[in-house]
Amino acid sequence: MNKWAKWTESIGPLSPNVVSTRVRLARNFTGLPFPGTMRTEQAMEVVARIHAIVANAQGHLGAKAMRILVLPELPVTDRLALVESHLISPDFANKREGAVALAEDQSVVIMVNEEDHVRIQCLLAGLQLEEAWHLASEADDWLDGKGNFSFHEDYGYLTACPTNVGTGLRASVMLHLPVLTMTNQIDKVIATIGQLGLMARGLYGEGTQAAGHMFQVSNQVTLGFSEEELIRNLKAVIEQIVAQERLMTRNVVAQDRMRILDRVHRSLGLMLGARVLNSNEAMSLLSDIRLGVSAELINLPSNVLTELMVLAKPHVLQTECGEALDAFGRDVKRAELLRERLQIALQSNEGGL
Amino acid sequence: MNKWAKWTESIGPLSPNVVSTRVRLARNFTGLPFPGTMRTEQAMEVVARIHAIVANAQGHLGAKAMRILVLPELPVTDRLALVESHLISPDFANKREGAVALAEDQSVVIMVNEEDHVRIQCLLAGLQLEEAWHLASEADDWLDGKGNFSFHEDYGYLTACPTNVGTGLRASVMLHLPVLTMTNQIDKVIATIGQLGLMARGLYGEGTQAAGHMFQVSNQVTLGFSEEELIRNLKAVIEQIVAQERLMTRNVVAQDRMRILDRVHRSLGLMLGARVLNSNEAMSLLSDIRLGVSAELINLPSNVLTELMVLAKPHVLQTECGEALDAFGRDVKRAELLRERLQIALQSNEGGL
Repeated sequence: MNKWAKWTESIGPLSPNVVSTRVRLARNFTGLPFPGTMRTEQAMEVVARIHAIVANAQGHLGAKAMRILVLPELPVTDRLALVESHLISPDFANKREGAVALAEDQSVVIMVNEEDHVRIQCLLAGLQLEEAWHLASEADDWLDGKGNFSFHEDYGYLTACPTNVGTGLRASVMLHLPVLTMTNQIDKVIATIGQLGLMARGLYGEGTQAAGHMFQVSNQVTLGFSEEELIRNLKAVIEQIVAQERLMTRNVVAQDRMRILDRVHRSLGLMLGARVLNSNEAMSLLSDIRLGVSAELINLPSNVLTELMVLAKPHVLQTECGEALDAFGRDVKRAELLRERLQIALQSNEGGL
Repeated sequence: MNKWAKWTESIGPLSPNVVSTRVRLARNFTGLPFPGTMRTEQAMEVVARIHAIVANAQGHLGAKAMRILVLPELPVTDRLALVESHLISPDFANKREGAVALAEDQSVVIMVNEEDHVRIQCLLAGLQLEEAWHLASEADDWLDGKGNFSFHEDYGYLTACPTNVGTGLRASVMLHLPVLTMTNQIDKVIATIGQLGLMARGLYGEGTQAAGHMFQVSNQVTLGFSEEELIRNLKAVIEQIVAQERLMTRNVVAQDRMRILDRVHRSLGLMLGARVLNSNEAMSLLSDIRLGVSAELINLPSNVLTELMVLAKPHVLQTECGEALDAFGRDVKRAELLRERLQIALQSNEGGL
């Protein structure tokens, strides 16, 4: 089990089509400049305030036991593994003044001195927008105390970048949409999403092609709506996209069952056979296997596939096996770990080739 | 088990590098023109003579129980399955006056009215040149009786095509040479073979590329040497080629074990995963798996792979499942049969992915 991806341990609602939900709140303390323009002592002051709040609550934030990780004290592989596990943002990993307050159950992650002083993030499996929003909001209340955070009567929360002003909320959902992609309907879906004040982008992919058929859909507007409205709107759109993906999956399987079965089982066969496996190929094979779960052609808990998707990343892989590896060494280790875990999951579900 | 390929039931010497050995003798009755120029009644007369010889010996030829198949009476799928199983030649399958005398154990096949009146063939697994020659020679003695066959004191046996005059013997060996092919040494090997009075050609392949890395090596000269000399010469060359393939296999595995393991197990995974499989891909996957057996990376009896190679052929496949199928139907059935048989073989050898 990847120590930085507890969120992959459970199967969330609308799995396997919805992989994960993230809600993020941007907050800044009053009386201090934004991270982009502040001095080192001021950054240290921000870290100290978070430390003090958590320490005063005996290491807790509400019901959540917390620990503080000071980024420069973590090995670089661990920091990059945190990025690859979706707990922190890529730019943040090398921030000298960065710190992370992390709930023991990893459901709440607070990035300190990212673009804003405080970014509260909740990451949950499947579609859990209200749940993630409530968790984030609870952490926000504890951190804000008697009004620590800059808040303007007209504009709402003030943030370093104007696109976050207002609620400071960004809610995003990671979707697996292989059939909408295969049937060339994904571009239309993405365009429609844009017209609804939302944004969709391929994940992990280089260029336009989304590797592993993964897409992230999030709200673009943060101002002028309440948090509940933003969440409700995003949720409705996601449910519609998933319904469309599922309908198309049923259609494609009905029309061309043997071809889909062939695709899914070939990828399963390659995953179990490969002894050298790069991360792009791993993503693509896992996507096909995930499609097999979605189409009910193979019996596997989808969170195992999410776990393996994260485990396939180079730094997670290295933290997992506890040694630094060159590219070929990683490809060999990736093949080995993914094969072993997939075999265990298949056996305990009486699945297989 | 394919009813026309009993020779695949055993594992012969120098397996899996040597797939099979065939010895063929060309003979013609005195007093009748060669098949190319004879009238239908004369062709019928040839069939009648073979019939009579076998009938007089109470359905036997020496120790072998025989049965006679009249080609036009066989369904076309069976005739083509005989070709695909290597029991008869392609041109012969549609010969109106053709008949086959077949030993119950299929080790001796006599084509009647092919290019010559009689072509005695022995097909055995692995490298068994002397054994095949003795079997053929025994059948020859029984058929020749007190001198039925045209024989010239100076030239030896007379045949329709001058390239067969003399011994009338063609001995050929089917070799699997994946590593000599992969390391680009096969062209040099083929050129050397040519200089030794032998001939090598890719099997099943279109153009220059031999599908499944299969090559057939046979004697080109039939005149001026005794049968024993021809057989001894061919055997020595084959043993040398196999030694070279085996040495290269050990080298390649020593240098690049993980890459070879990856290739072999990916092909095994695809073979177990595929639900739609054309015959070219089947040949190529079986070749990689066979390489795995040769390199001692997987544990499987190599004759199973030979069986599957023959079973993958379109007409054998259809005789096997007892129904006529279109191309897609064959690809589905091929995937199914090959997967099932491979799984059984893996299970009984405790092998697998």
